[in-house]
Amino acid sequence: MTTGLFIIYTGHGKGKTCAAFGQALRAVGQGLRVCLIQFVKSRACGELHALEKLAATTGLVEIHQVGSGFSWRDREMTRFRESALAGWQLACRKLEADSCDLLILDEFSYLIHFGILKAGEVLPIFQQRPATMHLLVTGRDPGAELLTAADLVTEMQEIRHPFQKGIKAQKGIEW
Amino acid sequence: MTTGLFIIYTGHGKGKTCAAFGQALRAVGQGLRVCLIQFVKSRACGELHALEKLAATTGLVEIHQVGSGFSWRDREMTRFRESALAGWQLACRKLEADSCDLLILDEFSYLIHFGILKAGEVLPIFQQRPATMHLLVTGRDPGAELLTAADLVTEMQEIRHPFQKGIKAQKGIEW
Repeated sequence: MTTGLFIIYTGHGKGKTCAAFGQALRAVGQGLRVCLIQFVKSRACGELHALEKLAATTGLVEIHQVGSGFSWRDREMTRFRESALAGWQLACRKLEADSCDLLILDEFSYLIHFGILKAGEVLPIFQQRPATMHLLVTGRDPGAELLTAADLVTEMQEIRHPFQKGIKAQKGIEW
Repeated sequence: MTTGLFIIYTGHGKGKTCAAFGQALRAVGQGLRVCLIQFVKSRACGELHALEKLAATTGLVEIHQVGSGFSWRDREMTRFRESALAGWQLACRKLEADSCDLLILDEFSYLIHFGILKAGEVLPIFQQRPATMHLLVTGRDPGAELLTAADLVTEMQEIRHPFQKGIKAQKGIEW
């Protein structure tokens, strides 16, 4: 019996998006259909290239990048708001239909954190999804309401970061 | 300039192995050669199937499962010790040679935690690896010496687990 889980990977440490992509890999390996919507990442990330390859060979993965041109340090909220809301509309369609077995909303938490969407309008749509659909949300500070509603929450805590030793971001590791 | 990072994903929360596989995905997407040695997982995991597909299409991934037949709850330490030490010998060979750009020792921490290996014998070998080789270790309780030596440490903290709601492990999510 499949019970659709609502999973949140949060916290300020590294590994949230990696864990989400690893989750996609695990699901695809078990024959599940995965839909990934990325709300923030703009850089050409290695994990996307690789997942696209897997999408091509398995036909089980659907990838959407809606947050192009934005990084979370950005102040340019207008453009982010527009693309984020378009992404949310897409997510709503995926949540309504039997379109996938695992829906990943990568860095979705910022939409709540920045007040673009309210938890109160998001949660009913999350909860009305097909009963077997797993939902995975990543990102910092999703807020108490989402955290309370989730079935599984892991907080990635930063214990040490290479930046503290003056080491720059490494290709293939940080992006 | 590539600086080989020593990364640890630890903590008692879900997501460590997923993050390691996501890291493999990211690295492969950037053209890096990845070698993964799994010390504990025995079950036929989805992420392995999917990574094997990626290995076949890219030629960039090498996978070794040395911990077959063991789960960390197991009391049967003799068999684990043998396979773990064989895995460590393999890891040593990979750490010596320019054999990969990212070496992942999944659930390696248990070898230290259970006293099969001492941090004092492991760390010099970690530190003498090629300067551009990234090293990623996952697992609970790796001990203070490994944690201190690492460049990047994320602790996956369990905030909530589906088990607390009586929901059983889900295929494609937990394995």
